[in-house]
Amino acid sequence: MRMVDLIEKKRDGHELTKEEIRFVVDGYTKGDIPDYQVSAFAMAIFFQDMSTNERAELTMAMVESGDQIDLSAIEGIKVDKHSTGGVGDKTTIALAPLVAAVGVPVAKMSGRGLGHTGGTIDKLEAIPGFSVEIDTNQFTKLVNNNKLAVVGQTGNLTPADKKLYALRDVTATVNSIPLIASSIMSKKIASGADAIVLDVKTGSGAFMKELDQSKELAEAMVAIGKSLGRDTMAIISDMNQPLGRTIGNSLEVREAIDMLRGEGPEDLRELCLTLGSQMVYLAKKAPSIEKARTMLVDVIANGRALETLKVFIESQNGDASIVDSPEKLPTANYQIEVKAKESGSVSSIVADKMGTAAMLLGAGRATKDSTIDLAVGIVLNKKMGDPVELGDSLVTIHANQQDVQHVVEMISSAYSISKSTVEKPTLIYDEIY
Amino acid sequence: MRMVDLIEKKRDGHELTKEEIRFVVDGYTKGDIPDYQVSAFAMAIFFQDMSTNERAELTMAMVESGDQIDLSAIEGIKVDKHSTGGVGDKTTIALAPLVAAVGVPVAKMSGRGLGHTGGTIDKLEAIPGFSVEIDTNQFTKLVNNNKLAVVGQTGNLTPADKKLYALRDVTATVNSIPLIASSIMSKKIASGADAIVLDVKTGSGAFMKELDQSKELAEAMVAIGKSLGRDTMAIISDMNQPLGRTIGNSLEVREAIDMLRGEGPEDLRELCLTLGSQMVYLAKKAPSIEKARTMLVDVIANGRALETLKVFIESQNGDASIVDSPEKLPTANYQIEVKAKESGSVSSIVADKMGTAAMLLGAGRATKDSTIDLAVGIVLNKKMGDPVELGDSLVTIHANQQDVQHVVEMISSAYSISKSTVEKPTLIYDEIY
Repeated sequence: MRMVDLIEKKRDGHELTKEEIRFVVDGYTKGDIPDYQVSAFAMAIFFQDMSTNERAELTMAMVESGDQIDLSAIEGIKVDKHSTGGVGDKTTIALAPLVAAVGVPVAKMSGRGLGHTGGTIDKLEAIPGFSVEIDTNQFTKLVNNNKLAVVGQTGNLTPADKKLYALRDVTATVNSIPLIASSIMSKKIASGADAIVLDVKTGSGAFMKELDQSKELAEAMVAIGKSLGRDTMAIISDMNQPLGRTIGNSLEVREAIDMLRGEGPEDLRELCLTLGSQMVYLAKKAPSIEKARTMLVDVIANGRALETLKVFIESQNGDASIVDSPEKLPTANYQIEVKAKESGSVSSIVADKMGTAAMLLGAGRATKDSTIDLAVGIVLNKKMGDPVELGDSLVTIHANQQDVQHVVEMISSAYSISKSTVEKPTLIYDEIY
Repeated sequence: MRMVDLIEKKRDGHELTKEEIRFVVDGYTKGDIPDYQVSAFAMAIFFQDMSTNERAELTMAMVESGDQIDLSAIEGIKVDKHSTGGVGDKTTIALAPLVAAVGVPVAKMSGRGLGHTGGTIDKLEAIPGFSVEIDTNQFTKLVNNNKLAVVGQTGNLTPADKKLYALRDVTATVNSIPLIASSIMSKKIASGADAIVLDVKTGSGAFMKELDQSKELAEAMVAIGKSLGRDTMAIISDMNQPLGRTIGNSLEVREAIDMLRGEGPEDLRELCLTLGSQMVYLAKKAPSIEKARTMLVDVIANGRALETLKVFIESQNGDASIVDSPEKLPTANYQIEVKAKESGSVSSIVADKMGTAAMLLGAGRATKDSTIDLAVGIVLNKKMGDPVELGDSLVTIHANQQDVQHVVEMISSAYSISKSTVEKPTLIYDEIY
């Protein structure tokens, strides 16, 4: 088999066999096939797409290119949740204790990563003492006992995907549905998930700006998951404005706690209940989605969700008293208000700009070696559809620096205020099975 | 400027500016832009094509990536001829003295290369003593005095094209009209041509198998030439069977001499007169194509063409007596006939197979380091449309080995004989201005 012939075959729109896809992925991982052939291959895929079979084979070849996490020692159906990413997305921190509270085992492997804020692990580390440095035995035991544990990424998962993604990033081949879908799904499957719930974001602050693109990606991932024997579903949720009211590590933890207490913003609660009820259903802890939702509403109301969070924090050496006294979380030295310059209704909040503003404050990493300020961030006092009066605070900036003029300007430019009434945007656009 | 953005721009079908194309070509030549970005870029071009402007800019950027031959010391309009390559194509050896005989300066830089037979220089070296090792001053003097000289390729011409071609070869991006056209035209322009006549082959033995593809390539090259201020035209000629009756270095020289004497096969003569009259016209040595053709027919008839060949050979240290005594050219030890196994008319001769047969005899190079046997080759006694009787000789193999059974089989499988009458194929399909 010659790589040049496989590039040509894909270039000319033919379907590659399982063996051919393995040849490419294995050869690339080992270094036998050079970058310059794989980048041409990726560009050919960009134009010619891949069939459902090809996508599944590519995913599985990437899964098998490295270590695979074995979660068989954990009882029950392990359901993983993945979000394609957005601004202010603290869903995991709220959702994990929520579904664990009704008995769904949550064996979460999480990362740090680059972005507007830190990853889930960074956010959790805003809790004094909290540690993800636990070994496999401990991890298994914690999930079996408490239904919830979070560990840092270990092992050499999907090295083929890592290598391919780095190459795609510099060859304008990121934006390809089959390549995005197989990349995401390979990581989920290598992490040992039995079932997968996907939260595909759509809108100006999402990777996929258009609803039809988002649906296409969701359908692609669900098809791959099912082809590979994993119960998989996706919801399409809104990212035309940041999710909830906070952006920033410590602030987001606080908002997640609020949600578990039955408080906090409506959009975060609704998203958690939607995703959570799918997870509970796929974990076979409820006979229907509707029943699953009722169970989740109940554990919020009766305090079991909050209690599960406390046990989770304590079991990973964290100070669980922050749940009842969130002021113990890191707080910033300065609070600066960004005020409305006119009256009307908020007609848009450009999520990307809000994320960048948080990053400028120090909430996220620009490079791998950046350090994160867990205390800083942004609280949105007004969201889309909210009425505002001239002088109202749109946003409260939490900063550890006094001069935040550039952040104020970034935030002001992210907000648009309209004279006419604005409807709140749809939160959940679709569900894909 | 970032290469990844330019790949994306081309991927999305936008037109690149002159500066952007320069950035890619210069960066790639210098090694600042890696192969893996350029291969993705080439694949994007494969799918998205290039505008006439982009093609001309790419050509000129490749021309300026290396040395350019300055032919200004040679009097007159220097017209170069280029063929996209076929089996048995000895046109240059016949055509160069032919047009030189009517006063067109032919300052030919030629190569060896890989293929079924050697390149023009290999073929000329079948003439005892003939040398292309002449310096620039001598070359200029010879062309000014005799209107004809051939020199080996010197200088670092179009390094960008060499590097890009090698990359395209292993990334399935060879077969792209804008990339093929700019590659060919960059070499012609760097070689110092004022005007260019292109012979684009079409048919089973050509790089372009289909007439419409061949036309598209011809139109692309003519457009590039004109954009860059070079009088350029192309003919589309047949390569459904080998050109003329010989394949092999020494045999082809002999056939070219026959043509200049007014003998030899009709298709070679017609092709030389067609290409030659275009060259004479572009060199402004005749007021019309028709007049140019008459001049060429005249110099064949009155012996001036043959005389020009003799002077050319002598001036480059060759033995000109071979013109009148072609038996002095290298000859092979064995002549083996391949006979018809049935009666009828020759309905096809697969040119590729005939070329491979010649190569198996030793007439061509498989790798750069292969040595060529100048004496060996194939004489086609029957061509398409010719009637044959059972037992007639289709081909005479000229070999320096006795066991040529595999070559006989290759040739037999190349010939098809039909019971019904077969028309001779068209030789010249089109002319593109």
